[in-house]
Amino acid sequence: MRTATIITGISELTTNDEELGRLTGAALVFEGERITWVGPERRAPAADQRVDLGGRAVLPGWVDSHTHLVFAGDRTAEFTARMAGRPYTAGGIARTVRATRAATDEELAANLRAHLAEAAAQGTTCVETKTGYGLTVEDELRAARLAAAEADEVTYLGAHLVPPEREAADYLDTVCGPMLDAVAPHVSWCDVFCERGAFDAGQSRRVLLAARERGLGLRVHGNQLEPGPGVELAVELGAASVDHCTHLTEADVDALAASETVATLLPACDLSTRQPLPPARKLLDAGATVALATNCNPGSSYTSSMAFCVSTAVLQLGMSVEEAVRAATRGGATALGRDSGDGAVGVVRPGARADVQALDAPSAAWLAYRPGVPLTHRVWRAGRSLV
Amino acid sequence: MRTATIITGISELTTNDEELGRLTGAALVFEGERITWVGPERRAPAADQRVDLGGRAVLPGWVDSHTHLVFAGDRTAEFTARMAGRPYTAGGIARTVRATRAATDEELAANLRAHLAEAAAQGTTCVETKTGYGLTVEDELRAARLAAAEADEVTYLGAHLVPPEREAADYLDTVCGPMLDAVAPHVSWCDVFCERGAFDAGQSRRVLLAARERGLGLRVHGNQLEPGPGVELAVELGAASVDHCTHLTEADVDALAASETVATLLPACDLSTRQPLPPARKLLDAGATVALATNCNPGSSYTSSMAFCVSTAVLQLGMSVEEAVRAATRGGATALGRDSGDGAVGVVRPGARADVQALDAPSAAWLAYRPGVPLTHRVWRAGRSLV
Ligand SMILES: [Zn+2]
Ligand SMILES: [Zn+2]
Repeated sequence: MRTATIITGISELTTNDEELGRLTGAALVFEGERITWVGPERRAPAADQRVDLGGRAVLPGWVDSHTHLVFAGDRTAEFTARMAGRPYTAGGIARTVRATRAATDEELAANLRAHLAEAAAQGTTCVETKTGYGLTVEDELRAARLAAAEADEVTYLGAHLVPPEREAADYLDTVCGPMLDAVAPHVSWCDVFCERGAFDAGQSRRVLLAARERGLGLRVHGNQLEPGPGVELAVELGAASVDHCTHLTEADVDALAASETVATLLPACDLSTRQPLPPARKLLDAGATVALATNCNPGSSYTSSMAFCVSTAVLQLGMSVEEAVRAATRGGATALGRDSGDGAVGVVRPGARADVQALDAPSAAWLAYRPGVPLTHRVWRAGRSLV
Repeated sequence: MRTATIITGISELTTNDEELGRLTGAALVFEGERITWVGPERRAPAADQRVDLGGRAVLPGWVDSHTHLVFAGDRTAEFTARMAGRPYTAGGIARTVRATRAATDEELAANLRAHLAEAAAQGTTCVETKTGYGLTVEDELRAARLAAAEADEVTYLGAHLVPPEREAADYLDTVCGPMLDAVAPHVSWCDVFCERGAFDAGQSRRVLLAARERGLGLRVHGNQLEPGPGVELAVELGAASVDHCTHLTEADVDALAASETVATLLPACDLSTRQPLPPARKLLDAGATVALATNCNPGSSYTSSMAFCVSTAVLQLGMSVEEAVRAATRGGATALGRDSGDGAVGVVRPGARADVQALDAPSAAWLAYRPGVPLTHRVWRAGRSLV
C-alpha cells in the first residue's frame, strides 16, 4: 500500500491551476508519485504522515526547461576576462567540446548528477538537458544516453555549432543522417542554434525537418545576439519553444502570441554575457506564453538558480511575481509538453506529479523581494523528499 | 592558552592586502579573534586544529556597511504591488515606523538577531545598522541601544524623515538636540537622508554638524532618486561615506575621487525600486573608493545577500570580479573606518580580525559566474565558526 503524506501549515499555495488558483489555508496530499488531494486544511482527508510547514509558502518545483549539463572542463577564466573587459580567445564552446570528448563516461555522469543535485537543492524538480558538446556521432550518442539516464527530458543538439574539424555542409549531412539515427532512440526533442555564426534559416530548417520526420519534438535557440529568423522558423514548424528571444521584432512578438510556441527567456544568460534583456512585458501583453529557464552551461550562463531567473524577471523584465513564478514552473512545463494530464509538472492539482517546494518565506513574492537570499526550505520530487 | 587553527586546502586566497595580494597554495592561521599568520601552506607553522577546505576559495567575510535592521512589520504587499505596476499608498516608511514603535524590545531584538544570523549564514561577518524607524527620542534611543548590543557599528538616523505627527523645523530641533544627546553614547555614526521629500542640503548640514560636534563620524544617504547635494555635502564635511550614489554628475564623481569619502553603492535597492543603476565604472575609473552594501530594509531593498550585490556589480555595473569582491569587503571596511590596524576587517593579514569565508567554489569569480547559487561553505567571525 502506498503511504499518503499530508502537507499542512501552508501560508500561501500557488497551484497554477485555473480553478484552484492561489490558496491560503490549504493543505495537499501526496500518494506515491502523485498529488491526490488539494483543498482547505480543515477538510483534509486522513493521511499516514503529516509535514507541518509552520506557515511557509508552497509552489510547484521549478521546471528548468533549458540547460546544457553534459559537459566537462572549466571556463572560469573566460568569464573573468569577459567581466574585466579583456578579450579572451581561448575557444569558447570548442573548448568545452574538447574537454567533453576527452572525459570518461563516469566523469560526465558524475558532473551531470552533481549539477542536477545542486539544482534540486534549490527547488528544481524537472530538468531538460541537451547534447551538443560531443559533435561526433559517437560523442553525441554518449551524451544522449547519459542524459537520458538522469534528466526528465533530453534534447538532441548536434546542430550546436560546426565543430572545428568539419565543413558545414558535410557536418549537416551527419547531423541529419547517422547522428540523428544514433541519438533518436534516446531523446524526445531536437534543437538547433539558429544564429549568425552557427546555422542559418535554411540549415536550421533542414535539421528540424529531419528530426520531425523521426518523430522528435522541436525546439530552437534563436534571436539571442541579434534579430534573426529563429522565432519565425520555430513558429512556422510548430516548435514547442524558441529559446533566448532577446532580440525580437514586433512581427516576432505577434507571431509568438498567435502561436502555441513558448517564448523561453534566459535572463541569466543575457546578464552573464552583458547583453540586453528580452522584451518579456511585450510578449506577455501580446498574449504569448513565456517560460523562464537557466540555460545552465559553463560558457554563457553558469547558474542553476531558477530563483535568480525569477528575481531578475520581476526586478528587471517588468514581470509581476505571479507571472515570473508561473513562467518558471508551468511555463517551462508547457515548453516541455508536460503541463497537462496524469503526472503533469509545474502545477499543483490532483493527478499532477508531486513536485513541490516550500520556501522559508510566507509568500512566493519573497523570491523577488529578497533577491539572492537562499529561501529553499523543502523540496519533493515525485513525492520523494529531496531537501 | 589560545587555540591556533590552521586553514588549509585553499584554492585561492583573496587578502585585499597590498603586499599579500591574491594567493594560491596559501594557508592561514587564527589565534583567538585574530589572524596571526598568512603564507605558503608548505611553510605553515604548527597549530592545534586544522581545517582542510579541500580546494575552495577563501576571502574576507562580507562587510555590509549599510543596513536598517531595527524594525518590525511587513511590507511584502507594497513590494508586490510595485512590481505589478499597481500604485500602493499604504504608507511606506511611515508604516514601518508605526510597527516598530508598537513592537516590544524583545520583538525588535529577536528580529534584528534573526536578520544578522541570516546574513552571517551567507558570509557576512561585519554589519552596520541604523536607527531611523523610531523618530521619537525614546524610540530612537531604544533602537540605538538594541543595535549596539548586536551589530558591529551603529548609526543614528533620526533624520530619516519627518514623522507624520511633527513639523520639519521643530523635528530638526529634536534631532539635533535631545534625540542626539540621548543616542550619542550608543552610536558611532550619524547619517541623514538628504533627498527631495526628506531633508534638503541646509537641514542635512545642520544635523551633520551637530553630530560632528558630539564626536560622531558622518555618513550621508544621497543622490538616490535624482542628482542632488548629498555627495557635495558629504565630501565637504569629510563624511566617511555617501550611500546610494545612483544619480551623480561629473562634478560629483570628481569630488568623490579627490576625497576620502567612500561611494557606497546599493544596487539591490536600485533594482528593487526599478531605478537606474549607479555609475560604478565612472567612479572606479576616476579613482574613487567604492563599497557595496545591501541596504537591507523592509521597504526598498529587503535582501541580506552580499553575494547578490557582488554578482549584480559584476554583471551589470561593469565592475570586474576583483573590484566587486573588494568593494563588498575592504570597501565596506573603509566606509566604516575599520580597514586598518589591529582587528581590521575586510582584509586577510596578520593582525586582522579572523573574519573569513570559504566558498563552495574554486575561485571568488564564481560569485558572479554562478549568480544566485548559494556558495557559502564556511564562515568564521573573530575566529569563531558560524557556518
Ligand atoms: Zn542554450
Ligand atoms: Zn539606507
